[in-house]
Amino acid sequence: MDVSEELEQLSRDGSHYSLSTGILPSLGARSDDDIFPGFLFLVSRFHEFLLLFEDGIHHTGNLSCLFLIMFNLPLHLIWETFLVALVIYTAWVSPFEFGFLKQPERPLSICDYVVNGFFAMDIVLTFFLAYFDKTSYILVDDRKKIAWKYATSWLALDIISTIPTELARKISPVPFQSYGFFNMLRLWRLRRVSALFSRLEKDRNYNYFWVRSAKLTCVTLFAVHSAGCFFYLTAARYHDPQRTWIRAALGDNFLEQSIWRRYVTSIYWCITTLTTVGYGDLHPVNTREMGFYIFYMFFNLGLTAYLIGNMTNLVVPGTSRTRRFRDTIQAASSFAQRNNLPDRLQDQMLAHLCLKFRTDSEGLLQEETFDSLPKGIRSSISHYLFYSLVDKVYLFRGVSKDLLFQLVSEMKAEYYPPNEDVILQNEAPTDFYILVTGAVDLLAMNNGVEQAVWEAETGDLCGEIGVLCHSP
Amino acid sequence: MDVSEELEQLSRDGSHYSLSTGILPSLGARSDDDIFPGFLFLVSRFHEFLLLFEDGIHHTGNLSCLFLIMFNLPLHLIWETFLVALVIYTAWVSPFEFGFLKQPERPLSICDYVVNGFFAMDIVLTFFLAYFDKTSYILVDDRKKIAWKYATSWLALDIISTIPTELARKISPVPFQSYGFFNMLRLWRLRRVSALFSRLEKDRNYNYFWVRSAKLTCVTLFAVHSAGCFFYLTAARYHDPQRTWIRAALGDNFLEQSIWRRYVTSIYWCITTLTTVGYGDLHPVNTREMGFYIFYMFFNLGLTAYLIGNMTNLVVPGTSRTRRFRDTIQAASSFAQRNNLPDRLQDQMLAHLCLKFRTDSEGLLQEETFDSLPKGIRSSISHYLFYSLVDKVYLFRGVSKDLLFQLVSEMKAEYYPPNEDVILQNEAPTDFYILVTGAVDLLAMNNGVEQAVWEAETGDLCGEIGVLCHSP
Amino acid sequence: MDVSEELEQLSRDGSHYSLSTGILPSLGARSDDDIFPGFLFLVSRFHEFLLLFEDGIHHTGNLSCLFLIMFNLPLHLIWETFLVALVIYTAWVSPFEFGFLKQPERPLSICDYVVNGFFAMDIVLTFFLAYFDKTSYILVDDRKKIAWKYATSWLALDIISTIPTELARKISPVPFQSYGFFNMLRLWRLRRVSALFSRLEKDRNYNYFWVRSAKLTCVTLFAVHSAGCFFYLTAARYHDPQRTWIRAALGDNFLEQSIWRRYVTSIYWCITTLTTVGYGDLHPVNTREMGFYIFYMFFNLGLTAYLIGNMTNLVVPGTSRTRRFRDTIQAASSFAQRNNLPDRLQDQMLAHLCLKFRTDSEGLLQEETFDSLPKGIRSSISHYLFYSLVDKVYLFRGVSKDLLFQLVSEMKAEYYPPNEDVILQNEAPTDFYILVTGAVDLLAMNNGVEQAVWEAETGDLCGEIGVLCHSP
Amino acid sequence: MDVSEELEQLSRDGSHYSLSTGILPSLGARSDDDIFPGFLFLVSRFHEFLLLFEDGIHHTGNLSCLFLIMFNLPLHLIWETFLVALVIYTAWVSPFEFGFLKQPERPLSICDYVVNGFFAMDIVLTFFLAYFDKTSYILVDDRKKIAWKYATSWLALDIISTIPTELARKISPVPFQSYGFFNMLRLWRLRRVSALFSRLEKDRNYNYFWVRSAKLTCVTLFAVHSAGCFFYLTAARYHDPQRTWIRAALGDNFLEQSIWRRYVTSIYWCITTLTTVGYGDLHPVNTREMGFYIFYMFFNLGLTAYLIGNMTNLVVPGTSRTRRFRDTIQAASSFAQRNNLPDRLQDQMLAHLCLKFRTDSEGLLQEETFDSLPKGIRSSISHYLFYSLVDKVYLFRGVSKDLLFQLVSEMKAEYYPPNEDVILQNEAPTDFYILVTGAVDLLAMNNGVEQAVWEAETGDLCGEIGVLCHSP
Repeated sequence: MDVSEELEQLSRDGSHYSLSTGILPSLGARSDDDIFPGFLFLVSRFHEFLLLFEDGIHHTGNLSCLFLIMFNLPLHLIWETFLVALVIYTAWVSPFEFGFLKQPERPLSICDYVVNGFFAMDIVLTFFLAYFDKTSYILVDDRKKIAWKYATSWLALDIISTIPTELARKISPVPFQSYGFFNMLRLWRLRRVSALFSRLEKDRNYNYFWVRSAKLTCVTLFAVHSAGCFFYLTAARYHDPQRTWIRAALGDNFLEQSIWRRYVTSIYWCITTLTTVGYGDLHPVNTREMGFYIFYMFFNLGLTAYLIGNMTNLVVPGTSRTRRFRDTIQAASSFAQRNNLPDRLQDQMLAHLCLKFRTDSEGLLQEETFDSLPKGIRSSISHYLFYSLVDKVYLFRGVSKDLLFQLVSEMKAEYYPPNEDVILQNEAPTDFYILVTGAVDLLAMNNGVEQAVWEAETGDLCGEIGVLCHSP
Repeated sequence: MDVSEELEQLSRDGSHYSLSTGILPSLGARSDDDIFPGFLFLVSRFHEFLLLFEDGIHHTGNLSCLFLIMFNLPLHLIWETFLVALVIYTAWVSPFEFGFLKQPERPLSICDYVVNGFFAMDIVLTFFLAYFDKTSYILVDDRKKIAWKYATSWLALDIISTIPTELARKISPVPFQSYGFFNMLRLWRLRRVSALFSRLEKDRNYNYFWVRSAKLTCVTLFAVHSAGCFFYLTAARYHDPQRTWIRAALGDNFLEQSIWRRYVTSIYWCITTLTTVGYGDLHPVNTREMGFYIFYMFFNLGLTAYLIGNMTNLVVPGTSRTRRFRDTIQAASSFAQRNNLPDRLQDQMLAHLCLKFRTDSEGLLQEETFDSLPKGIRSSISHYLFYSLVDKVYLFRGVSKDLLFQLVSEMKAEYYPPNEDVILQNEAPTDFYILVTGAVDLLAMNNGVEQAVWEAETGDLCGEIGVLCHSP
Repeated sequence: MDVSEELEQLSRDGSHYSLSTGILPSLGARSDDDIFPGFLFLVSRFHEFLLLFEDGIHHTGNLSCLFLIMFNLPLHLIWETFLVALVIYTAWVSPFEFGFLKQPERPLSICDYVVNGFFAMDIVLTFFLAYFDKTSYILVDDRKKIAWKYATSWLALDIISTIPTELARKISPVPFQSYGFFNMLRLWRLRRVSALFSRLEKDRNYNYFWVRSAKLTCVTLFAVHSAGCFFYLTAARYHDPQRTWIRAALGDNFLEQSIWRRYVTSIYWCITTLTTVGYGDLHPVNTREMGFYIFYMFFNLGLTAYLIGNMTNLVVPGTSRTRRFRDTIQAASSFAQRNNLPDRLQDQMLAHLCLKFRTDSEGLLQEETFDSLPKGIRSSISHYLFYSLVDKVYLFRGVSKDLLFQLVSEMKAEYYPPNEDVILQNEAPTDFYILVTGAVDLLAMNNGVEQAVWEAETGDLCGEIGVLCHSP
Repeated sequence: MDVSEELEQLSRDGSHYSLSTGILPSLGARSDDDIFPGFLFLVSRFHEFLLLFEDGIHHTGNLSCLFLIMFNLPLHLIWETFLVALVIYTAWVSPFEFGFLKQPERPLSICDYVVNGFFAMDIVLTFFLAYFDKTSYILVDDRKKIAWKYATSWLALDIISTIPTELARKISPVPFQSYGFFNMLRLWRLRRVSALFSRLEKDRNYNYFWVRSAKLTCVTLFAVHSAGCFFYLTAARYHDPQRTWIRAALGDNFLEQSIWRRYVTSIYWCITTLTTVGYGDLHPVNTREMGFYIFYMFFNLGLTAYLIGNMTNLVVPGTSRTRRFRDTIQAASSFAQRNNLPDRLQDQMLAHLCLKFRTDSEGLLQEETFDSLPKGIRSSISHYLFYSLVDKVYLFRGVSKDLLFQLVSEMKAEYYPPNEDVILQNEAPTDFYILVTGAVDLLAMNNGVEQAVWEAETGDLCGEIGVLCHSP
């Protein structure tokens, strides 16, 4: 089998879309030689299918294998994306039908049948879909386990949300027979959107800020749309059209207005209420509307807290880095002033803090991240960064590679701004410096006590890099 | 005594509902062999009574003992739950009677008498209820101390809030004789709900998020209900019904409308105001209403801050784990880019961080929690996790159990993604690895410097577990 | 001099209201033997005056001394409290006169003269008031320095805010001659309230939460009151009374309504706007009002952010302790489940964490605070807590006091819940335990490997206290 | 060349506006000898130009050099400030023309031409402007690289936003030919304001709080102004003036009202909506307005979250220091009470914490900042602070400077409040104290165990300073 062999070969290369790296999907993947940009995405997202696919090949001869093979990577990606698009359609159309339509209308009802058909197909396909076990982190591709897991989790809800409307109206009891009511059950499909967002949030190919913003926007849009449809329904079904909230905007014969005007008016009122602007040109009039409105406002309180909490959470960290820098500068300045440090020292302190802020942009996080890596990786990084530097140093000519290797893992890079003291004369020697770029002067200061001071000077207007070797 | 003996026996077993574990009630308790699910709850919540009960048995012969015995665990649980239900009834009915009723009405007033009776019973019972001393953490079961503590704390308020309405109206001065005014004192009972919530917040059998949400919902509902009743009262008692806020909605003869319409309208207005929607169809009209409204809005400002602050606090931490992970990935990527690390190293770094995020879900908290445990427990855990592994290792055959035991307490589990370097050739040896699952390859890399690299390969698609023994 | 001698004597006692402890005013003071509760407050707050007072005694003979002596502690406390009360009066009356009065009215204008008189007296007194230098923390009691500091800081503003109204109207240019305009300058005195609050916030005799709440309430009240007066003015001075915002509530002849109705209506509108309820029964009508309103709303945005930010900040930390505890329990449970720890171990872990939460209520803060104390104090505390315990232990009979003293400073208290393992058999011995309360059993467990386990049993239903001596 | 020589000379002095310190611009600069205050600002901000300028001198002879020389520091500062002023003008006038003007009007259109001219000049000048490379931190002054970078980044947008209105209307397709539409493209220039603010935030010469506040105010002002102009346009262009939102305020003939009234009314409505006051006197009437309004409210939700999040972020940290202090005091008090510490110890604890709070105002930040400085600077500071003290101590007479120097880097300053124990008698000696100010007493306490206690006494009412030398 061509595909199988290709995959085997990829695996042997140790490249990132081998089977064995499949375990680290959407985050670690990065490559320079991917032929078309989407392919990498496919590989990282749907490694399950790759594995399933290979498995199917080994047990050729039974029918299920056909499905498994059919659903190899690119095909299933298209299928999933297509389903999310259908879910978005459902999210919009279900509340709309519930609120604004009394009878199934042609183009929409046909659409619904087609969409339901696709979701019915997905139910069947899910029985052939391997999954990762959550506690043992192992891929489960046993057909019986897959079926059992699906049957005991979401199968029932998936089937209920796929029953065709006509059938549903016939089997359901009288009070729930109104058209569109049953459609609301289709909103169960929204879990796919929720799952998509929680996956995208963890995917480093997408900006976290924009994924969260998109999620919040979707939540708000859906909340406003649903509420609009629902409130229109309370007005349309009320026995006395004279005493409904929508009359104030559209007049007594509001049922005869264009559906667009009615829809926009509903949405307008809902967003006015959601944002607590509350102009008052439209407001609940009869007791039933007031009752619904009271429940809506309790829901709104929660939604508002959710929105403001999340938005604040997105906005705030953006400014924290600058703020922290300013606080540090402030602390350094006050310390200097309280102790009457001479200008020269004060300038050096501040210059160093500024250089750090400008060059070392990841700050605290970087160091923590580095420490949390296992020793093997840390050694590799140190080796890559410093070995070639140390190897060229005159002092280490003839030193064994083993020693250099161990020396290198204790090294650290330091950046000095110009005119900063590196070593003072009488200081106890604890570090060993290797000069990488720039130049150093030997100065003799004349403030009472004579002392030797090394001052860094920049040749090319960039902070010099001294590599520092700590002896603990 | 059968019960007493049974308890003694339980205590000897060291099982979780023994007397002696009673000190750690609602949090530590967990068991696989509890017959009915509620019983464990009873045990963990009402251990005080168990103890009281046992105490009662030892001093048989006096009357109080009867009460103490009568109130053993399950009975008192039902009693407490029943009282909280009565408090909820009181919380709803007291403001309602204050606002909407001029005279006691039959079904409600009888209910009130019955409810008051139950609370009067509870006052008596409290004199026989042992309590935990807050500073010494010792259970106090001395009858005199119990009585003295109750008498000096809440007895007076409990009695006042239990006086029957008719009696209260007679003894109270003229301006406070309006029906329902005295009922407001019954709201003192709300402290039971408050105590219930602060207990549930600490009970690990309940989800913290939902307990807090329920508490906030209750606070909001009660605030809206009370304000609604109160504002209705200001309108109903105003001398000129033409100039009251409610007239705009219900007309001049609003006093003759159904009580349901008046109640819904009041609640509608209050929630419109609380959420700052403020349609303006209803608004204060006369000076007195404006005055009340001004005080209400100051209270509202505080309530809103309380609600938003608490909700934000509930919503925000949910996203912080993903956010922290993204920040870590970001820091690692920038570090790699700034230093031009080769792709292989970069992939290893990111793969490791992702694996950590997926397997090690408690992250920082876990390590802190582990360190805060006493040495005995930590040793037990290490022994349980690693002893059987180390015992099987060929290298440690014949080694004494004592040594293994001490070795085991220094062990740590590490997970490696596939294709990650575990040990580099020239590295200084500091750790000793025991391979638990998966396989390791010995590779020779050819990038200039020849070096031996061990690469982990997964046999079963799950990250292999290497157990690592640090030599400090 | 009696008072002087008494103070001298106090100082010698080293008691807390000696002169020399005066440097640590409002926070460290605590005493069991203070005769009347307010006196301690006086001492801690006005130590400056004590010192000033003593200084005055030493240089008897010049006039200034009279003042200095006159202003010893209790007198000045009354004076300051009296002035703050006057400031609150000013804060209310100045905007009110500005907005609602065209001409000085009798009772108010006399009051104003009297109040101004008191503040004029305070200006004179300030010249005799010693102050603490902010950089050197030294009390300055040199008359010239005091005068110079006052003259170069707030003297001018204090004088301007004390000029009588009649005089001010005469000397000020025409457009500012309207009555009350000049009064607004008196609001400069509000700095005293601001200073009072920032002092109370740091005073441990007052609850931080309530001081902050009171401050926020005062800010809100003043903002609403000022805005109400100001908006009334824009309506009252507008050339066309038909087109003002207040007409909708009070009718065309609103100028003839009672001042109470006009005031309540103004406040009502302002608070409706501030809280963004915005009913719309009252709203800006002419261009000038709209202009003022636009500026007011920009100010309101800032005020709202200040209020919500501060209230959230007050509300949130209250729940953080319980939340942290729940997170810890959660982390421990997940760890136990992921590693399939046996129930016994899991119960021990959770029991220990719960006991810690219940007994060790200050948690993290306590340890940090303890570490930040200097060594002398830490030793004293350890000595006080543990010396008498260790002295009684049989093992340490005859051991020198010096050794015990040094041993004691390395001790730590640990609490164990019942049934918890303290020492396992094969464990490497690193700690030495002294049993303070409770009892310990020597158990032999039978799970495969035989091992000795010490289990704690509680005699009196309270967690036993084992004192633990770490050997580092 | 005079200027060049002067710069060379400055550089040699090592003073803060030398070329070589240019790398640390707006933050580290501080000097006592700057002649006019603005000059320092120039130096720190426009060091790029200084460097460019010097470079120009070396290659005299070609034309470009003229520009480079012409744009030395002060001239370019004026130019940049001038451009920001023009941008502010553009930000106000572009939406205004778009919303309120149908035809170009005289004074404004001439202004626009002039402003466009200046920005066209700036485009040309940018080709001669050196820039800092973001990854290597090196100044790029190669003409070709400068041109290429500009051409590939913002050139196109800069040119489009500079095309004259008349020309733009001719070349643009019909639906976009309305006057003012094209002007909106000029808002591209706002990036300069954004860049200015992000620079000022990092500039320690400006208060962070006020810079952020100014930024938020500008954002709000611009959002309100733009929305006002836009909503006016939707009303003015609507076919039926009877059914527009503005009619309710200005009547049917609103197009004939003064432009000032129309503008104020628009702004009034927008700010009423933005702050969610929503009086309701003005509200969307026709479907198109409702549609625009819906989009505006979604934008508003984001803006509100941005404003509240940022303001809260500005307001909150201001109170955190006091709060932390109160929490520490609280923890210390509870610890003392739980352990029944004697009053004397408790007072010492609290006194020490208070003194710390009052003297050591930077607290945690200071220590972290100090530790993050390189060893050279830390040694210099220690040397400066302690060398002269230690040199004078009798015990160290004749000790070599090298030893003193190394001793000094291990020293730490400690402040003691009066009456605090410094050393207890039997304590293990670990520190060496040097008394700097104040006095110490040798006391013998008589609480059972006799022990020697040193008590600090203040001579001058200020906490004495003991310098403490740790032996690790």
